[in-house]
Amino acid sequence: MEHPRKIGVLGGGSWATALVKLLLNNCNEINWYIRSSENIKKIKKYRHNPNYLSSIEIATDKVYFFDDIAAAINASEILIVAIPAPFIEAAFVDYSGKYNNKFVFSAVKGIVPQYNLTVSEFFNKQFNMPFSRLGIISGPCHAEEIALERLSYLTISSKNKADAAYLADCLRCHYVHAKVSDDIYGTEYAAVLKNIIAIGAGICHGLGYGDNFQAVLVSNAIQEIKRFLDKTYRSKRRINSSPYLGDLLVTTYSQFSRNRTFGTMIGKGYSVKSALLEMNMVAEGVNAVNCITQINKQYKVKMPIIEAVYNILVNKVSAPLEIKLLTEKLK
Amino acid sequence: MEHPRKIGVLGGGSWATALVKLLLNNCNEINWYIRSSENIKKIKKYRHNPNYLSSIEIATDKVYFFDDIAAAINASEILIVAIPAPFIEAAFVDYSGKYNNKFVFSAVKGIVPQYNLTVSEFFNKQFNMPFSRLGIISGPCHAEEIALERLSYLTISSKNKADAAYLADCLRCHYVHAKVSDDIYGTEYAAVLKNIIAIGAGICHGLGYGDNFQAVLVSNAIQEIKRFLDKTYRSKRRINSSPYLGDLLVTTYSQFSRNRTFGTMIGKGYSVKSALLEMNMVAEGVNAVNCITQINKQYKVKMPIIEAVYNILVNKVSAPLEIKLLTEKLK
Repeated sequence: MEHPRKIGVLGGGSWATALVKLLLNNCNEINWYIRSSENIKKIKKYRHNPNYLSSIEIATDKVYFFDDIAAAINASEILIVAIPAPFIEAAFVDYSGKYNNKFVFSAVKGIVPQYNLTVSEFFNKQFNMPFSRLGIISGPCHAEEIALERLSYLTISSKNKADAAYLADCLRCHYVHAKVSDDIYGTEYAAVLKNIIAIGAGICHGLGYGDNFQAVLVSNAIQEIKRFLDKTYRSKRRINSSPYLGDLLVTTYSQFSRNRTFGTMIGKGYSVKSALLEMNMVAEGVNAVNCITQINKQYKVKMPIIEAVYNILVNKVSAPLEIKLLTEKLK
Repeated sequence: MEHPRKIGVLGGGSWATALVKLLLNNCNEINWYIRSSENIKKIKKYRHNPNYLSSIEIATDKVYFFDDIAAAINASEILIVAIPAPFIEAAFVDYSGKYNNKFVFSAVKGIVPQYNLTVSEFFNKQFNMPFSRLGIISGPCHAEEIALERLSYLTISSKNKADAAYLADCLRCHYVHAKVSDDIYGTEYAAVLKNIIAIGAGICHGLGYGDNFQAVLVSNAIQEIKRFLDKTYRSKRRINSSPYLGDLLVTTYSQFSRNRTFGTMIGKGYSVKSALLEMNMVAEGVNAVNCITQINKQYKVKMPIIEAVYNILVNKVSAPLEIKLLTEKLK
């Protein structure tokens, strides 16, 4: 199948690298923006990203590299944003006129902190992009398993199903199923919420809670996510399907989950600062718990797990105490 | 609180041993039937069950031991059945007149094979016991974590909520929450189905499928369980609460799960026979997949995961092939 529309991947992390690998299966050429020209040089020379998923071989002859995001945006019809949410504003805000007629898919699972907006909401509100030109790429999908070519299922959400289907075609391969959804709101918020839950799961694990409790926590968590989504934007979504429950499961149960690993360190007694330093990666949930707590002030959805994570990370309540209180609220 | 009604635990395996530990926290004395008088002698002498959860200390001065099941039944007002489903008929069928006015709680997660009945259905149909004197003890709860005194949540289900609440009181302690439900049908079948799913999860794991796929499998599985329960006995159950989704999660994700371990061996190429020999424990799901497949013949619920497990275990279809076909049906 021909894929004539030029796709630009923005970001140089592990998820960006995994998406580049998938796109190169199907597209004759792509654009790839990476902030560090040093890293671009290394990828061109070694045909691997030295920093993330370095086992993946990059077909560099099919990639146009950019260290200038404006140039990458200009050169692309479809943009895939894979830059951590805390850096979104700085990366994009100067280019507000450049998105006309482009399609932007967010592969970010976080909230733009200065705005308390998801990435699609940010593009919609800040750059007046209609939701018909915005979309979301959801898992359950750890980038590490794309590198290993292990079977994974992606969901591409957009109000514009034709464009979502186009991107799904570009990502699909023998180890990736890709389906289309129109629930851009639900899939994006579910992806944000699950990162916070995964921190909570990690905290409990770090404190010595076992598998029996973890199962109760996650069962309560999907109900908490459903409550939030139903209250804030009701839709006919099936909460137990892959981009909601599946995404929650892979993040709370997988060793590959950064948010869970971060939580485990907190449970074992690390401070937030030292846990973040130790990880040397962005755990989107740390930022998100603050934003979601602000957003939820107007909705007042009962979210005991997210409240507990907030109290531990932001209010510095003792983790053993806060989780003990949480256990009384779950059932 | 006083707990005057005499409880008898029937069975000497790990779940029985864990339940005895819990009951001894709250009851002044209990009855315990174990088939092997040799094992009873050892428990009396060493105050530990030598075969299962041997770290648990048994307060033997509060236990009346029985190697004669009829005597144990006679001596008890409330019976907790913790004998694997394949042995239920042989254990109980001679005592059909003895259950008058007694309350029977099943802690078994299986189906009586000769009858294609759950344990509560078996007591109902074979001994004319009304459902008002039958109940179910559900997890998510691996016995091993009770031994470790890790926080766990039990659900006690019965049409008779007062009796369920009585047993919940007897089992509750600082590391066990126990709540009551009236969905005896749903909790019992969910517990049976999750064992089959766990075998499926193990098979996929053994074949090299990763965490991304596991999340998709389990998300599809809870939908499959819901479809079955809704079709066979509709009720207002919340499928994402602990005794349904939670029980599924602990069984599909925990290292303690025998059914998952069994499935992993099948995925790695063991035959059913050699995997069972290797485990030296009962994996209830192996028997259950046969029974559920028979039961589902009249309902025709779409259950692709259970069908795949059936094809692999019973029809001896190659596991890699059958799971490959399954991956096309999931989403």
